[in-house]
Amino acid sequence: MNVNIVTIGDEILIGQIIDTNSAWMGQQLNLVGAKVSAIHSVSDTKEGIINALEIGLKQADVILLTGGLGPTKDDITKKTITDYFDTKMVFHEPTWERIQGMFKRWGRSTTPAHKEQCFMPANAQILFNKAGTAPGMWFEIDGKIVVSMPGVPYEMKYLMEHEVIPKLVDHFPGKPIAHRTIRTVGEGESRIAARLETIENSLPDFVKLAYLPNLGNVRLRLSAIAENGEDIEGILAEKAAAIEAEIPELIYGYGTQTLEAAVGQLLLERGLTLATAESCTGGLLAHKITQIPGCSAYYKGSVVAYAYEAKTKELGVKQETLVQFGAVSEETVKEMVTGVLSAMNTDVGIAISGIAGPGGGTPDKPVGTIWLAVGSKDYTVTRKLQIGKDRLRNIQYTAIQGLNMIRQFVNKYYPVKVTLD
Amino acid sequence: MNVNIVTIGDEILIGQIIDTNSAWMGQQLNLVGAKVSAIHSVSDTKEGIINALEIGLKQADVILLTGGLGPTKDDITKKTITDYFDTKMVFHEPTWERIQGMFKRWGRSTTPAHKEQCFMPANAQILFNKAGTAPGMWFEIDGKIVVSMPGVPYEMKYLMEHEVIPKLVDHFPGKPIAHRTIRTVGEGESRIAARLETIENSLPDFVKLAYLPNLGNVRLRLSAIAENGEDIEGILAEKAAAIEAEIPELIYGYGTQTLEAAVGQLLLERGLTLATAESCTGGLLAHKITQIPGCSAYYKGSVVAYAYEAKTKELGVKQETLVQFGAVSEETVKEMVTGVLSAMNTDVGIAISGIAGPGGGTPDKPVGTIWLAVGSKDYTVTRKLQIGKDRLRNIQYTAIQGLNMIRQFVNKYYPVKVTLD
Repeated sequence: MNVNIVTIGDEILIGQIIDTNSAWMGQQLNLVGAKVSAIHSVSDTKEGIINALEIGLKQADVILLTGGLGPTKDDITKKTITDYFDTKMVFHEPTWERIQGMFKRWGRSTTPAHKEQCFMPANAQILFNKAGTAPGMWFEIDGKIVVSMPGVPYEMKYLMEHEVIPKLVDHFPGKPIAHRTIRTVGEGESRIAARLETIENSLPDFVKLAYLPNLGNVRLRLSAIAENGEDIEGILAEKAAAIEAEIPELIYGYGTQTLEAAVGQLLLERGLTLATAESCTGGLLAHKITQIPGCSAYYKGSVVAYAYEAKTKELGVKQETLVQFGAVSEETVKEMVTGVLSAMNTDVGIAISGIAGPGGGTPDKPVGTIWLAVGSKDYTVTRKLQIGKDRLRNIQYTAIQGLNMIRQFVNKYYPVKVTLD
Repeated sequence: MNVNIVTIGDEILIGQIIDTNSAWMGQQLNLVGAKVSAIHSVSDTKEGIINALEIGLKQADVILLTGGLGPTKDDITKKTITDYFDTKMVFHEPTWERIQGMFKRWGRSTTPAHKEQCFMPANAQILFNKAGTAPGMWFEIDGKIVVSMPGVPYEMKYLMEHEVIPKLVDHFPGKPIAHRTIRTVGEGESRIAARLETIENSLPDFVKLAYLPNLGNVRLRLSAIAENGEDIEGILAEKAAAIEAEIPELIYGYGTQTLEAAVGQLLLERGLTLATAESCTGGLLAHKITQIPGCSAYYKGSVVAYAYEAKTKELGVKQETLVQFGAVSEETVKEMVTGVLSAMNTDVGIAISGIAGPGGGTPDKPVGTIWLAVGSKDYTVTRKLQIGKDRLRNIQYTAIQGLNMIRQFVNKYYPVKVTLD
């Protein structure tokens, strides 16, 4: 199936927001073998939406619209579609009941605008939106599909995953397609590509290997489309095994598993507990770890010691160490690890201190100088990063390197799984 | 002038990269009064590029293409344009001299692909690209402008700033345009719209108000185009003032300012220091606060007390309180505030404890039950949230509400600015 994505909203055209919805939608559609032939971002005006519909109906089998469905006046998509399809609005009782139920649970009252939202084009199938008030709409017009969804990413994603993609796959059964994603950390794209060159050259035409780099991680995606009944699952398993044999130490997970989830699983399997002591990453490492449901089984907490005083008082870093070596030093992160192991009473600890920027750099320690230490009562491993000038990027990159150090530390010093009850 | 932006590349359509070029271009064009009526992302195929050109030539005065100009095989834009305009390629000597000069300075030699790059459509004006090897091309066709630029952001930006925008402004002296963005937190889109209804109805036709909601925040964007010499800056100032008078307590900032930056500025202006104690938000609040450069002037640190033990040992929460009321209770967050004020020695503290989910809910305290407390040595304010079932969304929403509580607390109890030296 050939898809056009349409994102609606002046805020995209004037560059006030970056359209991340269509990239996410493109990824998801690609996974089920749908081809996105174009993405159109248009104004939230009648003219803009109709232009996009006309282009889409000419070019594609499926048009996915996002944006312009909400309780305020600037939401024009629904009205435009209703007029364009020459139909009328009818009140959709189930949506109204659901919205009332949501507001009741929140202990708040609805406004007239919420009731207004429940009028729907008569020819639409209503797609249940568990993530918000505006439902999605599914239209079938002369063999083509038009779907309208809210632009709020969380709501759009809910509808795509639970309603739109399953219905599209039913509607357009395609050639069998298979994907396998291997997740790596610790090396850049070109170095991995050099190590995998022989494997890559051995791939048959119907199998593709894509490198998807993202700030310290590289995902390797093998994709195959069975053009003539090939055993695509078999060949992907074989090629994935070859990749695993070539770069075993870089692989932390598969599919959609995140690095923080992989580290959590490792700690759980080894029966270990973890605490973190963060300075320049300012809580991001803790936030990543605690995004994983059930993390309280292995994660005890963090001391985000931003101020000098917090480093000495909460983590027991010696005043002399700070004076002699500075807050950003191997000596300081080692003492921070010792301090957090004791404060949080855990098996493993990690400490990070660095200069995220833009200020605070010196000739000796320019912005992007970061020290990390991972330790237990018996071992400590340290590492120095020398990275870039962008504050947020430094913070994010360091948190990923920290997670990878925990992974390597546990693999090295706690190689044996414990038997869980 | 009416502009269509076209970004070329399969990597955009499959979501492998997010198209940030067009947002940047939209901003720059908007600043000079150009109206972007659509952004099209298309495949790097002849068909994709021709489709986009045809749509653009129908809809717009100016078509700006980015992508598909470079020394590798998949660069098809130039060839497609040459064929589409029914012209031929001619060798462009000045570009070849420039490329040879660049490589000489780098101490490297050119490849045959670099010479190939110097063949240009005969009807193009060549735009000098100081930032890379591929020049831009400017075409004038039946009163319309088509410009082709490389997709590398750095090179595209150089060409836009130094060549394309100045030439466009010369070509289409335009109507003045103005925007004003007001940032709010604490109410949903429909309630704000209800309060602003009279103001919204009073807007003249050439002024628009858009609501841009995003997880606990709503941005209000006023836009005006001077169709007939109207005083658009004046009317935007007047309408913005009316909005400010209607919802003063919801407004935290303007333009691109984030909530965490606004809270930081407030603390700085009041000469206050802040510490955080997080349980269910797991460090996200600390991470948000420490994204702001210079935050160490007011932010001392956080205790992320995920485990019971961390709450008692690091924050001095009483064992009896945890047993009697539970970790997710008003009593516990109050003691956490007291604890973190003392541990970090700050003027203001915030504590958060809740059930982010998906596990851990009980009939009394279902998933999404969150307690927050903000306090100083003299005052404490608490709040209970009852939100949804999605773990990450609960964490993110709570962090925003926490920032807003700090803002409200400081505004209420520390109304007077201090004089900074």
